[in-house]
Amino acid sequence: MSEKRVKTGLIGLGTVGSGVYKTLCNFGNIEVKKAAVKNLSKPRNIADLDVSILTADPYEVVNDPDIDIVVELIGGVEPAFDLIKTAIKNGKHIVTANKELLAKRGEELFNFAEEHNSVILYEAAIAGGIPVIMPIKTILSGNRIDRIEAILNGTTNYILTKMDTQGASYEDVLKEAQELGYAETDPTGDVEGCDAAYKITTLATLAFKKRVKIDKVYREGITKIRPQDMNAANELGYKIKLIALAYLDENSRADVRVHPMLVPKKDTLAHIDYVTNAVTLSGHPLGEITLSGPGAGEFPTASSVVGDILAIAAELGKTDYLLPMMRCSHNENADMIDIADTVNKYYVSISVKNCKGVIGSIGKVCAENNISLASIVQKEIMDEDAAVVTVITEKALERDMQNAILALEKEDSIKKVDSLLRVKSMR
Amino acid sequence: MSEKRVKTGLIGLGTVGSGVYKTLCNFGNIEVKKAAVKNLSKPRNIADLDVSILTADPYEVVNDPDIDIVVELIGGVEPAFDLIKTAIKNGKHIVTANKELLAKRGEELFNFAEEHNSVILYEAAIAGGIPVIMPIKTILSGNRIDRIEAILNGTTNYILTKMDTQGASYEDVLKEAQELGYAETDPTGDVEGCDAAYKITTLATLAFKKRVKIDKVYREGITKIRPQDMNAANELGYKIKLIALAYLDENSRADVRVHPMLVPKKDTLAHIDYVTNAVTLSGHPLGEITLSGPGAGEFPTASSVVGDILAIAAELGKTDYLLPMMRCSHNENADMIDIADTVNKYYVSISVKNCKGVIGSIGKVCAENNISLASIVQKEIMDEDAAVVTVITEKALERDMQNAILALEKEDSIKKVDSLLRVKSMR
Repeated sequence: MSEKRVKTGLIGLGTVGSGVYKTLCNFGNIEVKKAAVKNLSKPRNIADLDVSILTADPYEVVNDPDIDIVVELIGGVEPAFDLIKTAIKNGKHIVTANKELLAKRGEELFNFAEEHNSVILYEAAIAGGIPVIMPIKTILSGNRIDRIEAILNGTTNYILTKMDTQGASYEDVLKEAQELGYAETDPTGDVEGCDAAYKITTLATLAFKKRVKIDKVYREGITKIRPQDMNAANELGYKIKLIALAYLDENSRADVRVHPMLVPKKDTLAHIDYVTNAVTLSGHPLGEITLSGPGAGEFPTASSVVGDILAIAAELGKTDYLLPMMRCSHNENADMIDIADTVNKYYVSISVKNCKGVIGSIGKVCAENNISLASIVQKEIMDEDAAVVTVITEKALERDMQNAILALEKEDSIKKVDSLLRVKSMR
Repeated sequence: MSEKRVKTGLIGLGTVGSGVYKTLCNFGNIEVKKAAVKNLSKPRNIADLDVSILTADPYEVVNDPDIDIVVELIGGVEPAFDLIKTAIKNGKHIVTANKELLAKRGEELFNFAEEHNSVILYEAAIAGGIPVIMPIKTILSGNRIDRIEAILNGTTNYILTKMDTQGASYEDVLKEAQELGYAETDPTGDVEGCDAAYKITTLATLAFKKRVKIDKVYREGITKIRPQDMNAANELGYKIKLIALAYLDENSRADVRVHPMLVPKKDTLAHIDYVTNAVTLSGHPLGEITLSGPGAGEFPTASSVVGDILAIAAELGKTDYLLPMMRCSHNENADMIDIADTVNKYYVSISVKNCKGVIGSIGKVCAENNISLASIVQKEIMDEDAAVVTVITEKALERDMQNAILALEKEDSIKKVDSLLRVKSMR
């Protein structure tokens, strides 16, 4: 069967765009007709790049009547949002790697696409090369997924792994990561957990079939993690990881958040190091699976973008209603659980005066706030006047824990609560 | 849009069939019209089972003109082969979990299905609930996959994990596994690696887009693994796992095999324990990903079967050519590399006389056969007259290694080569 050549237009020809261009060269039935770039004269690391396809105007791509699939790889909300809407209006299908756009304006885009019988695929937006989106939409679609726990940001996982293996401070490792290109000059989006929050928002929306609002997603970054916390975690049998999680309770209420956690060393996620990403999905009838691999980079991300392009190309022109399983039409908003109402185990590191009765005071305050202690690490004496007490609690209400922290800091024998981190339970 | 109710017919209502039936009850648009069983009067652990759908004649299922999708869950080559062919002839689509049938007669079945514009989906045949087949066919289809390393058999992985954690013998753990239902009364198919060989045959055929012949797949089971090997591996930094692997070299020749391997503890597969399965895929542009989860069981396997059913149901009646990406039409046979021509690292455990010069003899014989030693474990003295020497080699040709074994056993100072196992390299 001779196939029609499918014409694509790329918006963005940076790292991922280059990988996509190079990979598509292997597919005779797919053509890159146009590629919009910021700077036409910038030298590009692509052998045999046909420069005549380059344009500085992305609207030339979305308005080109020959183009079937628009591949948006510039990131950010605008102009990506308007470009994609225009492309959809013009009858094109969309492949995007834009997690921020999907998390903030996904609902509008998916509704608009559905009205225009267009599909938006976005495997590359979440966990780079790891197949997650398409499996959830297709082969896993018989499941009620009620639990996602994931490492979705390579930069922070790299920093935490380096802090762990080198015993170095956050600041020192960040500087090194910036020099190596693993962290950006302004690292805020990564280290404060925004990037992971965009991704878990879209992932939870998909898996729970309910719209999760990004502004209801609790978020805490890794900037306050200290080498002391890394050490204490290790001694207690844990690794510290930035975990993006999403739980759906029996009443179908969603608990979606991003924050550092102590992960038991027996947990698969504890062994996901450096820039590797991983997603653990649990549900019925499946049970639990973990998917791990490269979460970013030119080629891994290109694998997902090209996979999406090939999926559209395979059905283009053969049916009026492409890829029915890949559509997105659920508009019910998720009922979200506030962080204060969640139940967690905690790791607490407390600077205390080196005096009698301090552990008793901690125990008393915790008990008064409905918090049971699972273990207390022998206080470490810093000098005549100062010591550190580290505790792991049993499961407790976040609101109670926050109250306990306030109460602890009012105790005479306690100087300061230095760290409060949540602890991941094994299933 | 009101959907046509899709009618399925199950052949087999055992463990997996029950899970499929129970799961399909959640989908209003899918009906189980008939289910063929061996024994009509056998009590079944399915609440609300409509016994009127049961039949003892599987041909009633494949010949029922109302049924759209036949789900084959009986296993084995016949009568499954004839039933599926009949169903295809009758215009039905097929979902199967039958790894033996696919490995032995897949080519005929897929060709027959293609001639009749029917699809055969088989996610459940490989790695139970873990999404592997559909991802390779869809989102990963832009890749040249050239390396698969996997733990595909839960029974053997359970036995090896127990031998490792308990220091117990193969025979004792097998007995325990049989009592717990993790191993069958006749465990041959699992412990000799046949089950894993069926699965890697089909997986390699799919990933390499070339037909791998099961009779060319090298296979070695776990029955000869000794507690001593487990201990030695641990001391050297490895775990022993039954690995199914498939490599495609630069000349597109395939090396496909199943045998125990020493897996470095840093490797993800070293931490896949008990009945969990895992598949590591490498290729370009992807890089390397690992997918892990439950490789068998009523519900995990049902997740994959139901996923396949839903994929067919989503397109049924909407297009003349269903699921174009899920078709299988490659008929080129893979050029297979003989085990003798493969290159591996080896672990060798040798019973020697407790005399001077024995390590020298081992070194000499190895050198004469082009084998370099990477490490020699200090010989362990058993009694006045006997000792054990354990070596790890550098990469060597299998043919040379086999010759070295023969030569070693002719040396006066050497009693017997007790174990020869291959060692997995980190990438």
